[in-house]
Amino acid sequence: MSPDDPHPRQHAGRSAETAALAASDKTPPHRVAAVLAIGDELLTGQTLDSNSRWVSNRLAELGVSTIEHATLGDDAVAIAGAISRLATRCDLIVATGGLGPTADDLTRDGLAIAAGDALVRDDAAYDWLTKLFASRGRPIRDGNERQTMRPASGRMLHNAQGTAPGIHVVIPKHRCDVFALPGPPFEMRAMFEASIEPAIRRGGDDVIRVRIAKHVGIGESNAAAALGDLLDRNRNPLVGITASDGVITTRTRYVGPAANADDALAETAAAIDQCIGVYRFAERDVSVFDATIDLTRERNDAVIFAESCTAGLIAKRFTDVAGSSDAVLGGWVCYSNDWKMQHVGVADDVITQHGAVSEPVARDLAVGALANLRQRQRTGAQPWRVAHALSVTGIAGPDGGSEQKPVGTVFIGRASAIVETRDGWLNAGEPSVEVRRFHFPGDRERVRERTAVAAAAMLLAELQQRQTPTLLWQTEPDGLPIDSADGSPLQPDR
Amino acid sequence: MSPDDPHPRQHAGRSAETAALAASDKTPPHRVAAVLAIGDELLTGQTLDSNSRWVSNRLAELGVSTIEHATLGDDAVAIAGAISRLATRCDLIVATGGLGPTADDLTRDGLAIAAGDALVRDDAAYDWLTKLFASRGRPIRDGNERQTMRPASGRMLHNAQGTAPGIHVVIPKHRCDVFALPGPPFEMRAMFEASIEPAIRRGGDDVIRVRIAKHVGIGESNAAAALGDLLDRNRNPLVGITASDGVITTRTRYVGPAANADDALAETAAAIDQCIGVYRFAERDVSVFDATIDLTRERNDAVIFAESCTAGLIAKRFTDVAGSSDAVLGGWVCYSNDWKMQHVGVADDVITQHGAVSEPVARDLAVGALANLRQRQRTGAQPWRVAHALSVTGIAGPDGGSEQKPVGTVFIGRASAIVETRDGWLNAGEPSVEVRRFHFPGDRERVRERTAVAAAAMLLAELQQRQTPTLLWQTEPDGLPIDSADGSPLQPDR
Repeated sequence: MSPDDPHPRQHAGRSAETAALAASDKTPPHRVAAVLAIGDELLTGQTLDSNSRWVSNRLAELGVSTIEHATLGDDAVAIAGAISRLATRCDLIVATGGLGPTADDLTRDGLAIAAGDALVRDDAAYDWLTKLFASRGRPIRDGNERQTMRPASGRMLHNAQGTAPGIHVVIPKHRCDVFALPGPPFEMRAMFEASIEPAIRRGGDDVIRVRIAKHVGIGESNAAAALGDLLDRNRNPLVGITASDGVITTRTRYVGPAANADDALAETAAAIDQCIGVYRFAERDVSVFDATIDLTRERNDAVIFAESCTAGLIAKRFTDVAGSSDAVLGGWVCYSNDWKMQHVGVADDVITQHGAVSEPVARDLAVGALANLRQRQRTGAQPWRVAHALSVTGIAGPDGGSEQKPVGTVFIGRASAIVETRDGWLNAGEPSVEVRRFHFPGDRERVRERTAVAAAAMLLAELQQRQTPTLLWQTEPDGLPIDSADGSPLQPDR
Repeated sequence: MSPDDPHPRQHAGRSAETAALAASDKTPPHRVAAVLAIGDELLTGQTLDSNSRWVSNRLAELGVSTIEHATLGDDAVAIAGAISRLATRCDLIVATGGLGPTADDLTRDGLAIAAGDALVRDDAAYDWLTKLFASRGRPIRDGNERQTMRPASGRMLHNAQGTAPGIHVVIPKHRCDVFALPGPPFEMRAMFEASIEPAIRRGGDDVIRVRIAKHVGIGESNAAAALGDLLDRNRNPLVGITASDGVITTRTRYVGPAANADDALAETAAAIDQCIGVYRFAERDVSVFDATIDLTRERNDAVIFAESCTAGLIAKRFTDVAGSSDAVLGGWVCYSNDWKMQHVGVADDVITQHGAVSEPVARDLAVGALANLRQRQRTGAQPWRVAHALSVTGIAGPDGGSEQKPVGTVFIGRASAIVETRDGWLNAGEPSVEVRRFHFPGDRERVRERTAVAAAAMLLAELQQRQTPTLLWQTEPDGLPIDSADGSPLQPDR
């Protein structure tokens, strides 16, 4: 896509300036940033801004804290106003969007006002764009010509992916670096990595290190109560906790001399583990499904599913993970009673006697699923070691609940059996089975998502040989709340 | 889940104040809003804020323009500062997040500073929360007790979905209404609809009416090109178009005297239909899955699934719809070749000859799925009329692609057969079958989501008897782009 001669002057200029910016020891390091997202389509709710999150994430890794995201419309005065306001509190502003070729792309105008500059044409960028268009057999257009304008004191940033160069300008009064990047995420990300990362000035000896731990089966306020003083906001390493659909993430962030980083992080990690370690399933930013698939593949195990109320969601979540076909063989969506009986093998009288949403049905679904493997699945070159079946039957709502089994009641079964191979076909041996009863809060969507997480949590605990006495939202077999005097340290939450 | 006495004072207070707020003719209508998202996890890039977009979208429909989104950390002073700054330019501020039970949830503190108030305990909210916890057999805790605090001049907003009440406070100097809602999207949305929508003050005699049409199978820029002048931004009714995962929504917004509203909206709807009506599947805000299930139930049809690369996603999406158990019987996740052959009935040599990702395999999966119904499913009191099977085989990526079948290649099959009943068992008759080949762009997640939408689009067109010559991202059977000279008015997009 790029022309033969990729604007050598622009490149040369950028490298020289970047080097100067990064190397100068006299200028203090970048510490505090704001992130702007620009575009009317963001303010009307037409488009979701995912750029700001990505930029903040990258800045955090580079040791720069983001204190504000602001989303603004295509309005040069508003853009200039936000830059001027934030420049008093930040040493770095990263803006995305509003650099396109149309008349309502006004980020460069906003930058010029904020910098107190006129807009001028950048000759190198103009040459580059002319050649780019020529290489596509088209003349440069008015709109695209606007894309070669920049504030007089600014410089262009090369766009390797599109026609909109980025702009770097310094707000002189506050010595605040402002970088404007194009809105399309792949253009923005490439430019951030090529032009902003190398230009970030790092602090003297201090380093920032982040350590993550993920936990499943405990609620947020129970986890917070257990962690206690570890969550003190003045602590270093600082421990943060977030909850999302039944998964608790702790992020431990160390700031200080590099030499102490590993010890400080390890010490805090051990302290966190002492409080909630029994629920920890990973020390990296992965979902329960990623972790389960990774471990299943590692152990050379296989997984199958028999899902009633989740109706394919658990299989879907497991197969979100690339490479899951090594571990996932298949499953049944058994939404009707007949499907449970005729395809998976639940006995007719079990449903009649206990109801479709019951412990025995969850058990029969898991055991029946494994039994169904008999001579239905060939073993590959590397035969599976253990086959696991996850089963679900429950009431996701909004209707179908009763006093004994209110909406949100779900039974999750797990059956695991050592795989025997006969004549190249897979046969599951005698299974070990567990069934847990849950009462998940929330609407249909929440109940189903939480069921999928809890099912993965059950398999994950088995694979990792963790003893989790109770899981978040688990109840007694009869549906009553679990008595916290039973020895489990922490109880479900909401 | 809610206690016997659902905080009657809180409810009564809310209704009375809301009515006063909305009915007062002397106060000017709400016109200009800002939307705040609060939480350290948003600024570090850990979590993506989707609330602000949703709120802006709703406000736009209510005639209120959003001029800024700001995302702030858990910092009471920063929150107060943003509110004070925006209150000078807005008459409405909607904030989400930071109302949880932990020490770093500081939105209420920020509101109190901005309003110049002390924080006081709201007795009605305290009673309500105490009862809510009692109904779960647990005492109220310190953190949750904080959730019953509000600025002295403010009022609580009922949370029907969780433990965090919202807060409404007026910044007196600027007469700016500030609403703080909890961060979890389903809590936030329910509270917005219950407490903010009725409190928005509308302008004089003019009414705002919105009419929605949903289309599937056409790309955004093709739809925009077809609509042409209808998208003029100065038009009234104003037509907006948004695209999300293969579904195009047109929103027609009329502002003016009530008497003209219906005619103006009907005229514009007819003009839109003339351009892209063949792709229209609904005139209300429903997903393709809602529409498909509704129509299937209405016709007394049944649906089953045989999914390879989507692995349960399509069944999951269909069963997202409450009441889908009337129409969905079950299905197979046939992730391995053996599952396709041994459980669904794809012939061994078909896979050997054509590969697992091929037209014949998609066809065999759909036909085999229907054949499997034979004496496996009892007909209920009201036997099904037609049974439909949807099948999918494809390459979702990131690996597994080839030159002939690149990542994103998916074959979707549909088989439909009149149901025969023998001895109370369901038997599908001779099916009519269609298989279409697609090349979906995007990553693994996008390819799978787009596959689910396209599968629903195929069934929906059959149920609605619409002839859609080609669907978005469909290719020729050999994978080549479809020639736009074939008579179909509009072609896939990107």
